[in-house]
Amino acid sequence: MNKAIVLASRPQGWVKAEDFRLESMPLPAAKDGEVLVKNHWLSLDPYMRGRISDAKSYVPPVAIGAVMVGQTVGEVVESNHPGFKAGDHVLTSLGWQTHGVAKGGEISKVEAKAGVPLSYYLGVLGMPGLTAYFGLYEIGHPRAGNTLVVSAATGAVGSVVGQLGKASGCRVVGIAGGKAKCDYAVKELGFDACVDYKAGKLNEDLAAACPDGVDVYFENVGGAIMEAVMMRMNFASRMIVCGLISDYNATEPYGVKTVRAILVNRIRVQGMIVFDWLARYPEGIKALAGLVAAGKIKYRESVVQGIENAPQGFIDLLQGKNFGKQLVKLI
Amino acid sequence: MNKAIVLASRPQGWVKAEDFRLESMPLPAAKDGEVLVKNHWLSLDPYMRGRISDAKSYVPPVAIGAVMVGQTVGEVVESNHPGFKAGDHVLTSLGWQTHGVAKGGEISKVEAKAGVPLSYYLGVLGMPGLTAYFGLYEIGHPRAGNTLVVSAATGAVGSVVGQLGKASGCRVVGIAGGKAKCDYAVKELGFDACVDYKAGKLNEDLAAACPDGVDVYFENVGGAIMEAVMMRMNFASRMIVCGLISDYNATEPYGVKTVRAILVNRIRVQGMIVFDWLARYPEGIKALAGLVAAGKIKYRESVVQGIENAPQGFIDLLQGKNFGKQLVKLI
Repeated sequence: MNKAIVLASRPQGWVKAEDFRLESMPLPAAKDGEVLVKNHWLSLDPYMRGRISDAKSYVPPVAIGAVMVGQTVGEVVESNHPGFKAGDHVLTSLGWQTHGVAKGGEISKVEAKAGVPLSYYLGVLGMPGLTAYFGLYEIGHPRAGNTLVVSAATGAVGSVVGQLGKASGCRVVGIAGGKAKCDYAVKELGFDACVDYKAGKLNEDLAAACPDGVDVYFENVGGAIMEAVMMRMNFASRMIVCGLISDYNATEPYGVKTVRAILVNRIRVQGMIVFDWLARYPEGIKALAGLVAAGKIKYRESVVQGIENAPQGFIDLLQGKNFGKQLVKLI
Repeated sequence: MNKAIVLASRPQGWVKAEDFRLESMPLPAAKDGEVLVKNHWLSLDPYMRGRISDAKSYVPPVAIGAVMVGQTVGEVVESNHPGFKAGDHVLTSLGWQTHGVAKGGEISKVEAKAGVPLSYYLGVLGMPGLTAYFGLYEIGHPRAGNTLVVSAATGAVGSVVGQLGKASGCRVVGIAGGKAKCDYAVKELGFDACVDYKAGKLNEDLAAACPDGVDVYFENVGGAIMEAVMMRMNFASRMIVCGLISDYNATEPYGVKTVRAILVNRIRVQGMIVFDWLARYPEGIKALAGLVAAGKIKYRESVVQGIENAPQGFIDLLQGKNFGKQLVKLI
């Protein structure tokens, strides 16, 4: 049997466990040109909040009753496609389920090797890592000596952004919630400083951590944190709008009052989604794999066990309770 | 005697006539390397609101009791600089006064010719025209067939932006306050459409005027108008943040709730100030003068008479009562 999590209702505000439902169904059959995959790992990501909202976005929302979308890595158990054989490891978009059938063109082979477990293809070598890589370099244009600030600093994207910044000669300042995450950013990831936004003095702490202002801001959260950083951005600085997680569960978006900073300091603000660089994924994966192998990028995972716990893992992620890339282990 | 308007008090919210004071003083003497100028025209511009506020900006504010800043064109009446002689017409930064002394390096010669009166060097061939030229082309990157929206469409900057857009093959949609301004934008300036934001149905009118969305948005006003346009911006569109006149007199900045549009549509938002292209002013003036001479850029002025009326002219400008480039005629 296949077990899947389907969307039961469209959440208003914070996502609840009741917005999802576990369903069981017979294993699907692989037709000609298709493969049946048993998923090992499911990735949970903030963008999924947008996919279950009916606000205008870059793709239509998940329908009520449909299997939740998401990437997995798994193992081919039956192949009717000449490019794959049973036992191959593959990256898929099969969503929140233990098994699934995909066309050959919809999956790609991945390979576990020393220092690179399969799950890394959902994180540092997958969409989050590539988001960090292309967003930082293609929009942020970091230069040695620049001050780079990244919010959600210990998350799957933020932790890679900051370490790429260090590797590129920047002063790197993270923003994260709580002392444990901030300690991790500085002591384990090598950031120069990390501001705990839960400590209640965001502006003062940010000022102390960024004595020369901010040249590049990689934005994952939005809201009051975005405002605080924008007020410290330098002339001709760059802001990458990658995520606005603080807005995703709000019933009304935050009203940003710092637009004038864009004018006064000639800030360049640009939105990004990793798909925009789809044709260049191999370049990004190669570069990131090299940095992981060289020990220049450390990576941490936050794992929940079993498909039935995926909704709670997702809710924890949206509330910032995860510590590292959020995954569901399915086997 | 020289007559000058000085800043009497720092306004909170809307500027009032009492925030200024007319003073008379003896004519200053031109020392070695200096010239004495009699001003003919004074330019009034929205940026001046920022210069009398003590909010952080790109230059320090005008001090209480100091002569208001601004550009003038005038005539040299006495020269102790080898590069200038009595009777030369010059562009200056002498501010709100009938006369003033400037160093030779602080002024530049201008020449009235057929179709180009002296006052044009404060408008279409001056800072507003150059703001339009560099902002639109260097940040907006308009392409033939693009939809270009410009707010404050009949103002000194907006009217040039729109006409440059038409000359570059764009569909041009203005936003202005009132039927008279909108009629002028369409019938005189050749815009394809103009939305009257005072008509009370901004969103519907904007949707009707931009059936293919918005590719380039030249922002002069901010606030609710900015939000309405942002929600119609296309994938990979560009927004030039040139002015936020709706915020300048507000005691608290407007909270912009449409930041998510930047992410979803990968909009590039960039602030600009014309000084950034100082080294390229001659290129811009030459290009604009050619378009004016060819009849491709029409230009309208709104004139108040006498230095004593400059404060009221400035207040009218901030309230959108001017119709065309706001000037004070000093002779």
